[in-house]
Amino acid sequence: MSEYLDDLDTGPCVGLVEKQAFTFGSADEPMTLESGRSLGPVALAFETCGSLNAARDNAVLVCHALTGDSHVAGRYQEDDPKPGWWDIMVGPGKPIDTDKYFVICSNVIGGCMGSTGPMSPDPTNGPTDGPTDGPTKGAPYGTRFPVVTIGDMVRCQRRLIDHLGIDRLLAVVGGSVGGMQVLEWSVRYPERVCAALPLATTTKHSAQAIAFNEVARQAIMADPAWNGGDYYATGRPEHGLAVARMIGHITYLSDESMRHKFDRRLQDRCELSFDFEADFQVENYLRYQGNKFVSRFDANSFLYLTKAADYFNLENQHGDGSLVASFARARCRYLVVSFTSDWLYPTYQSKAMVKAMKKNGLDVSFCEIEAPWGHDAFLLPNPRLDALIAGFLDRVRGQCSAGECEERGTHAL
Amino acid sequence: MSEYLDDLDTGPCVGLVEKQAFTFGSADEPMTLESGRSLGPVALAFETCGSLNAARDNAVLVCHALTGDSHVAGRYQEDDPKPGWWDIMVGPGKPIDTDKYFVICSNVIGGCMGSTGPMSPDPTNGPTDGPTDGPTKGAPYGTRFPVVTIGDMVRCQRRLIDHLGIDRLLAVVGGSVGGMQVLEWSVRYPERVCAALPLATTTKHSAQAIAFNEVARQAIMADPAWNGGDYYATGRPEHGLAVARMIGHITYLSDESMRHKFDRRLQDRCELSFDFEADFQVENYLRYQGNKFVSRFDANSFLYLTKAADYFNLENQHGDGSLVASFARARCRYLVVSFTSDWLYPTYQSKAMVKAMKKNGLDVSFCEIEAPWGHDAFLLPNPRLDALIAGFLDRVRGQCSAGECEERGTHAL
Repeated sequence: MSEYLDDLDTGPCVGLVEKQAFTFGSADEPMTLESGRSLGPVALAFETCGSLNAARDNAVLVCHALTGDSHVAGRYQEDDPKPGWWDIMVGPGKPIDTDKYFVICSNVIGGCMGSTGPMSPDPTNGPTDGPTDGPTKGAPYGTRFPVVTIGDMVRCQRRLIDHLGIDRLLAVVGGSVGGMQVLEWSVRYPERVCAALPLATTTKHSAQAIAFNEVARQAIMADPAWNGGDYYATGRPEHGLAVARMIGHITYLSDESMRHKFDRRLQDRCELSFDFEADFQVENYLRYQGNKFVSRFDANSFLYLTKAADYFNLENQHGDGSLVASFARARCRYLVVSFTSDWLYPTYQSKAMVKAMKKNGLDVSFCEIEAPWGHDAFLLPNPRLDALIAGFLDRVRGQCSAGECEERGTHAL
Repeated sequence: MSEYLDDLDTGPCVGLVEKQAFTFGSADEPMTLESGRSLGPVALAFETCGSLNAARDNAVLVCHALTGDSHVAGRYQEDDPKPGWWDIMVGPGKPIDTDKYFVICSNVIGGCMGSTGPMSPDPTNGPTDGPTDGPTKGAPYGTRFPVVTIGDMVRCQRRLIDHLGIDRLLAVVGGSVGGMQVLEWSVRYPERVCAALPLATTTKHSAQAIAFNEVARQAIMADPAWNGGDYYATGRPEHGLAVARMIGHITYLSDESMRHKFDRRLQDRCELSFDFEADFQVENYLRYQGNKFVSRFDANSFLYLTKAADYFNLENQHGDGSLVASFARARCRYLVVSFTSDWLYPTYQSKAMVKAMKKNGLDVSFCEIEAPWGHDAFLLPNPRLDALIAGFLDRVRGQCSAGECEERGTHAL
């Protein structure tokens, strides 16, 4: 996702928040991943906003997108220049209203923002079935880190929810790769989710989406500094990672939004340069985004998280190849949202999931929002999206606290 | 463009062809480029098929796309595994019928297929206004090669046409970046073109098209082997160039064509690998195309040719900012063709040029062809395209030989 929030006034803020850590498992008692490989201990960085009520039924789990983190809203310190990444959506009086809801957001495993990932120290000096001539004990995993899946990410989040003493989430919400986690939650732990809000997402990547991710990965792995993933002591593959990020940014915008935002305007000049400097604003924007990303993100994490997104396939993993069957166990209410100009996860993909949900008799609200901003639209201010999310959460809060969820669950089983 | 022709039966072939060379100018008497810089001598590699008639009015100039070459049709030797890149279109009895037309195709300057470009020896050891501490005399230009434009390419082609003793081309035809050259011909040398066929092209790159090219260039320049463009003695930036090509291939296909061609099918396996090998066929395809390209193309040329395409802006260069005005000098008949799934140069861009042509009272035929294959569609077998081109050429041949062109030209002036 882009970082449009740079210039946004995000309004009333949830205030100061704190990054916390939850750890489970160990090298001796690891978690078994969907790949069959082991991982332990597993740390999750997470943050919360608002208060868990006495009935413990007002928790909303927010799942972040590809390169996001647990810092969903608020500030760590009063003078932080920027609040969390979805501060326009999460806060007092905002659509995900922290006066009403207890909001939780954790960094995914495989990430690099506090949760266990390829840059974490490897306590076993490589996994038990991995190479034995690797780096010294406690050195970063690098590519000895096991490939994780969206399912693995959600399984870890469930451990966190257990740890927080929450039986059932009022809602799970997220856009893009976060939306994949939402879908996964809804079919993997149907008894633990009252409502699910998959936004600007898909049940499986198209060949084109895989293609963009693959080229981005190739850009990283082609950088000699990547060094097979062992670069933490020698210097990071900054060039490759910047190129990978630039590719991503093209897919987050749209032809129309790029025309609106940049068209063919020149950067700091009146004439073409006739050299290979950035002539056009769009070139400068991409270079800026690429370089900025490099300072905050780990290249190996990028490889793992894009791979997890490419592997995600709800119908194969939960429906034996049938999208309809993959929702057979779901019981929650859904709000599915797509955006007209999102060509990374186009509306036809949202419509396919909605159709499959409805064939299972599920309670589904679907809205395609007219927006020119491409895939990024779910992160941008949009009164329509705000109203949809606020209204939907209000409705399910009433239904869940009235016990309709339990009845519905029993019925559905 | 992709190389779908690998598996195509291209039918009757024009037979054996020969790559020829035409050289003009010298280091002492160079050509002045649109940038103001000098280039000389200039060599153009070119090929011809068919015969120039006595009236010298049956010549068709074919302009190749970004990474094409002069080898448009036929074979160099009987046992060549593949014919030229547009053999399905050019040959005896084919839409551009070599029994009727004398077909000419030359490699653009800035290219690497025989015409002067950044890998050519620099006779002046860097241009006169360039650095003086460069490599030895006669070493390749590298990035000391001047940035060239579509206009420069066309000016060189005009010198070739002069050399061949052709006053007026019956037609200029080309797709993609070749189509830009067609447009440029039609407004720069209106008295020398009877008909113009810009296919799957645009009068100026969108911000999104520039963005894709810029990321591809960054991939090349981020490769340490690129070495500021001086890699001819040290080893080429193969990794960067392969990534650049992969990006291109995504834009040449479409969401639909990728789904049709690859969907999520796995490559040589039944299960996901849970590593960073190519799991999906689309990944394998991109890697294959990237690696294949590296063996035939020069990375610096890729930089120069994409830059020329990004710089192309018919309305700025010929219409003082007005697309309508840019066609004011044109006199030819146009056949403009776009393809429904081409998202690199979408139909709205062709419609804009058609509208501007019509406002000048020009004779324009326009067709948007329904095709799922994305930008590549213009290179693929398509009976509709064949019929359009064959019919259009037949019509203009009758009109031109009847002298209607001259009358029209006089009238338009």
